[in-house]
Amino acid sequence: MPSSPSTLWKRPGARRRPPALKREAVRLAAARLFAERGYHRVSLDDIAGALHVTKPTIYRYVANKEELLFECFRIGLNHSEAAFERVHATEATGLERLSQFIRAYAAGLASDAGRCTIRIQDTELSVPMRARIRRLRRRIDARFRMLVAEGLADGSIAPIDPKMAAFAIAGSLNWIGHWHVTGGELDVDQVADRFVSLFANGLAPRLPYPKRPPRASHHQPGAL
Amino acid sequence: MPSSPSTLWKRPGARRRPPALKREAVRLAAARLFAERGYHRVSLDDIAGALHVTKPTIYRYVANKEELLFECFRIGLNHSEAAFERVHATEATGLERLSQFIRAYAAGLASDAGRCTIRIQDTELSVPMRARIRRLRRRIDARFRMLVAEGLADGSIAPIDPKMAAFAIAGSLNWIGHWHVTGGELDVDQVADRFVSLFANGLAPRLPYPKRPPRASHHQPGAL
Repeated sequence: MPSSPSTLWKRPGARRRPPALKREAVRLAAARLFAERGYHRVSLDDIAGALHVTKPTIYRYVANKEELLFECFRIGLNHSEAAFERVHATEATGLERLSQFIRAYAAGLASDAGRCTIRIQDTELSVPMRARIRRLRRRIDARFRMLVAEGLADGSIAPIDPKMAAFAIAGSLNWIGHWHVTGGELDVDQVADRFVSLFANGLAPRLPYPKRPPRASHHQPGAL
Repeated sequence: MPSSPSTLWKRPGARRRPPALKREAVRLAAARLFAERGYHRVSLDDIAGALHVTKPTIYRYVANKEELLFECFRIGLNHSEAAFERVHATEATGLERLSQFIRAYAAGLASDAGRCTIRIQDTELSVPMRARIRRLRRRIDARFRMLVAEGLADGSIAPIDPKMAAFAIAGSLNWIGHWHVTGGELDVDQVADRFVSLFANGLAPRLPYPKRPPRASHHQPGAL
C-alpha cells in the first residue's frame, strides 16, 4: 500500500497500478471525507481534490456519490462480518469469543469506513441500497446475540436478555465511531480492553473469592 | 397539551393560544421529521405540512431550518441536563444515582428531540452553533464521569477507568436513539432496566454469596 493513496495516480508507472487498488483508494478517501464533514458537505470534486486527480478520473471507479456512500458502508460492515468469522472459528467460551469480537469490532470502528457507518445516516441511500445495508447491519446485531447466547449456554455468561445485552454492547462500541480520535489519549485497542472489562465484570464490586485455608504442607520449612 | 400539535392553529381560539406552545410544536414536528428522514430530506414545507399550516406561519417561530435543528439538539440535550440535576439532588450511592441517570437519559433518547441529537450529525450546523451544541454534549459526558467517580469514591463501584466507563455507558444509551421504536417489543424503561442490570452486574457469573451457617436458635421448635 503506498504511503499516500494519491501516489497511485502519479508517474512513473501510474497507468500500470491495478484499478482495484485505485477504486479502493477512491472509496477510502470518500469514507474519510464523509465521516469528517458529513455526506452533504462533500462533493465528488472534494474527493478528487483529496486524491490530486480530476473528477473524470473518479468517474472511472464509481458511478455517483450515492454509490460511493454505499461502498463505504459495505466496507465497514464487511469488516465486522469478517471479524466475526475469525472469532467464531476459535475454540473458547462464549464470553471469551464475545470479548475477542468486541476488540475486533472496535478496531473496525476506528477506521474511516467504520466511522462512516456510524456517522452518516443510511437514509441518504435510495431504498434498495438502504435495504441491503440494513440487512448487513441486522446480521451483525445477530452475531452479537449469537455470541451472548453461546456464553449463556456454556455458563460463561450469567442469565441475561441476550438481545438487550447485544444492543448495549454493540451500541457502546458503535459510539466509538463518533468520539474516538486517532492519535488520542488511548488507542482503540486500549479502549476495547476497558470496555471488555466493564462488560465482563460490571460496575458493582465483586465479592472476593473466599480465601481457602492454607493447605497443610508436608514440607517443613527449608525441607525442599 | 393538545392531542395533535396541528390543532394549535385551528379555530376556535387558535389566535389566543400561546406563541410559546406553537413554537414548541414547530420544533417537535421538525425533530420528528429530521429523525425519521434525515436533515436534508426535510424542508420547511414538509414541517409546515405536518402541522397543517403554511410556510409563512413557520417563519413566525423560526428563522430558518438550521436554527430549527439547533433547537432540536438543544431540547434533547437540555432534557439530559435536567435529568442529571434531579438525580444529583438525591441521596444515594454513586452506582444508584448513575442507574437513575441511565433510566432518565434513556427515556430522553426515545423522544423525537433525543433521537435527533443522535441521528443527525452536528456538522450540519454552522461553526458557532456547533460549538454550543458540543459544549452541551461535553457537559453531559462529564456528568456520566462524575457519577462514576462518585461511585468509586463511596465504594459502590469497583476500581475502573471512569472516562471509559462513562463513554461505554453513554454510547450504549445513545444508540437507543437509533434502534428503539415506540410501541416496539420493550418500552424504553424496560430497555433501561436491562442496561442498568448489565452495567451493574457484568456478564460473567458472580460468585454466590457464601452461605452463613444457620444461626443457633435459642427457641425450641414451637417454643414461640
